[in-house]
Amino acid sequence: MKRRILVIGGTAAGPSAASKAKRTDPDAEVIMFEQGDDISSGICEMPYYVGNVVDDVKKLTSFTPERLEKEKGVIVRVRHHVDEISPSSRKIAVRNLDSGKVREERYDSLVIATGSRPRSIGLAGENARNVFHVKSLEGTIGLKRVLADEKPGCAVIIGGGYIGMEMAEALAANGLRTTLLHRHNLPMMGLEEESQKAVAVELAAHGVEFVPNVSVQALAHNPGGSVYAVKTAERTYDCDLVVIAAGVEPNTSLAAESGIRLGQHRGILTDQRQTTSDDSIYAAGDCCEVRNLVSNRFSYIPLATTASKQGWTAGENAAGGSAVFKGVIRAIGVKIFDLQVAHVGLSSKEARESSFDPVVEHIEAPSKISFYPGSERVHIIAVADKSSGRVLGANVYGREGAIMRANVLAVAIQHGLTADEVSRLDLIYTPPYAPLWDPVLVLGNQLRKRIENEKPGHH
Amino acid sequence: MKRRILVIGGTAAGPSAASKAKRTDPDAEVIMFEQGDDISSGICEMPYYVGNVVDDVKKLTSFTPERLEKEKGVIVRVRHHVDEISPSSRKIAVRNLDSGKVREERYDSLVIATGSRPRSIGLAGENARNVFHVKSLEGTIGLKRVLADEKPGCAVIIGGGYIGMEMAEALAANGLRTTLLHRHNLPMMGLEEESQKAVAVELAAHGVEFVPNVSVQALAHNPGGSVYAVKTAERTYDCDLVVIAAGVEPNTSLAAESGIRLGQHRGILTDQRQTTSDDSIYAAGDCCEVRNLVSNRFSYIPLATTASKQGWTAGENAAGGSAVFKGVIRAIGVKIFDLQVAHVGLSSKEARESSFDPVVEHIEAPSKISFYPGSERVHIIAVADKSSGRVLGANVYGREGAIMRANVLAVAIQHGLTADEVSRLDLIYTPPYAPLWDPVLVLGNQLRKRIENEKPGHH
Repeated sequence: MKRRILVIGGTAAGPSAASKAKRTDPDAEVIMFEQGDDISSGICEMPYYVGNVVDDVKKLTSFTPERLEKEKGVIVRVRHHVDEISPSSRKIAVRNLDSGKVREERYDSLVIATGSRPRSIGLAGENARNVFHVKSLEGTIGLKRVLADEKPGCAVIIGGGYIGMEMAEALAANGLRTTLLHRHNLPMMGLEEESQKAVAVELAAHGVEFVPNVSVQALAHNPGGSVYAVKTAERTYDCDLVVIAAGVEPNTSLAAESGIRLGQHRGILTDQRQTTSDDSIYAAGDCCEVRNLVSNRFSYIPLATTASKQGWTAGENAAGGSAVFKGVIRAIGVKIFDLQVAHVGLSSKEARESSFDPVVEHIEAPSKISFYPGSERVHIIAVADKSSGRVLGANVYGREGAIMRANVLAVAIQHGLTADEVSRLDLIYTPPYAPLWDPVLVLGNQLRKRIENEKPGHH
Repeated sequence: MKRRILVIGGTAAGPSAASKAKRTDPDAEVIMFEQGDDISSGICEMPYYVGNVVDDVKKLTSFTPERLEKEKGVIVRVRHHVDEISPSSRKIAVRNLDSGKVREERYDSLVIATGSRPRSIGLAGENARNVFHVKSLEGTIGLKRVLADEKPGCAVIIGGGYIGMEMAEALAANGLRTTLLHRHNLPMMGLEEESQKAVAVELAAHGVEFVPNVSVQALAHNPGGSVYAVKTAERTYDCDLVVIAAGVEPNTSLAAESGIRLGQHRGILTDQRQTTSDDSIYAAGDCCEVRNLVSNRFSYIPLATTASKQGWTAGENAAGGSAVFKGVIRAIGVKIFDLQVAHVGLSSKEARESSFDPVVEHIEAPSKISFYPGSERVHIIAVADKSSGRVLGANVYGREGAIMRANVLAVAIQHGLTADEVSRLDLIYTPPYAPLWDPVLVLGNQLRKRIENEKPGHH
């Protein structure tokens, strides 16, 4: 009998799992259910549609349902919501959102890829017509329509994480006066303080008003359903539209109700095969926790890169394969106006929380030989473990050449290199692209010295 | 008694060794001898001076003799040539090139950093006034003067290695019609054939005439000492100036005459402390062979990055320290007009010669998400060992984002990662700088599959 593989969720991990399952077992029947109208749309690209970097909305989705069916042999059911999973009978209840009919579907293997949902700020007006969460393609198209039709003059962004940064740039590109309200004293929590300050300076330089340490009290809205101001304890910010970028959380109520085991961040826990606590059920993507290979702890790090790889693994195993996904170090990069900012591995705070004894070093070095046009300073703030010398994490920022240096460090971090080993890397020197002492090597040398100097007994 | 450390050669490894020696033992007397007028000038930057990227010749030297003396405490003797080393009595004979006087100097430790010299093409006219080797600062300044004063219309470059490429771009930037004569059928020997072809296409696209498979027979010169044509067996190339970029060889006659052991490439052989066959004599830079960490063989790979690190190691040990330099993988990058070309690790040919069983994979992937302005195809041709899966080397080329991808692979190659491990790297995805599947990950996945498919017994 043909293997029957069902996949819940069509954003990122779902299509990846479904395609890989069909490729692994071409005889299997693979059906993917998605409650929305579209599949294969990630949030990472949406700020660039809002900011007019890409004009064609079609470019935001890598597959239409029809193309996934035709090219990958996966059956796609959009506008279908899964109400219930019955692990004991290996069935799910699927509601057709157009007809309202619920139907039972039997599975041999199930992949849960229900993703994440925007964290609610818990205030009335949050779902008003000019309030947007950067999450769904529909929402993003709605935001674009408001920008085009209503020519709003000013916006408030609630949340200073990396999506908030990208949206600040995108709204500024549309000529909006933009205010960014943030709970903490500096943007981009998780970065080291000096990196955060560099981000704040960049926002200010581009006319974005960053308001720290605020708690939003209310979204003032009129009967027509539009928010016209955001109120904090201190003052009121008038605005024509609001973007809520307060982070996301795993969308795991369905899994939890079915008795699937969740972790401390409320994400689904899986083994390296992406198997959940139920042997026939796999999970992948933003609904999962993931092993951080540096701290060796489960973390919630929802990223498209992880979702794709987990999706492949879950799909292959759901079809009888034996794939393994070991985990991540966390590798994040963001463009904030003219600044590249990257974070790979652990922060100094996370290193302490993971029982390391962190040593932190901050260097700056030119991105290419100083006389070459376009040479800019690259900053690296790196964290190493004092006793082993191992590099645990790094922030890298600058106007040129920062993201790729972070990738070089990412390899070093993932494979446990020490600061001394980083200082001995054989990297390219060529005046138009890299200086004789690449910033990564400068960092390695300085970090190695700092570790030596901070060792007990050193004079 | 104060330690006396002498350094022969002031280009790259010499100043690095002398400075590090003085820093390691501040009481030591450190004297550096250089036969030319200048110190601290590398050839890597010279094409950018010729090509008018940098206008100030001072920017080509990182230290003047005066600055090295003042800031590093090193005594610098320019226009001093070392005629002889007497290892048994720990003395060298130094000739003052201005006075002609020869003087003996005693040493406790000696560092040989005599560098490399351009390979001669062995033809009359090679030293004519309009024939240039891109090697010394004086020569480069002479070339600039000819360009400015004589407004030459056309040039012939002899040699199609990476210096030849950079000079082709530099001369084209000066408006010269440029012909590049090369012994082999494609430029940049050592690259894989497809990379070489991409380079040839780039040269042609920028009007440089590449002539393959030629042997230069004569440099036709007039009594005034100017070459006016280059003759090959097939035809005569008229020209107003000639650049000879036929490669370099270790400048080791002084070392050889002193009984210092050389390797099969005629470079000085050292251990990991940069000690030569004589315990009191160290060597560093282009005069040395270097251990290739991938093949575990001694190679001749003259590069400024290696020279600096060997210089540090030799200087520290000459002053009583215990530094170690383990070797290189070879990491080279070059800009050829709009093309970035990098070579890290072994070529497929070198892999075979080093008794590996090479598997080669060629992928291309976008440098950033395809819709983002400036996205370009990155090509990676990688070589792995079939039995172990280890990645041994890679060519990376493209118009954007190639050099830094090569550095990511450089870390993987230096630390022995397999293709499977490369496919599992956690790298940054952010639309303005990197696609969801970074070219490095695409390479890892495809190379892993190719290794599996080529294994015996695979069906």
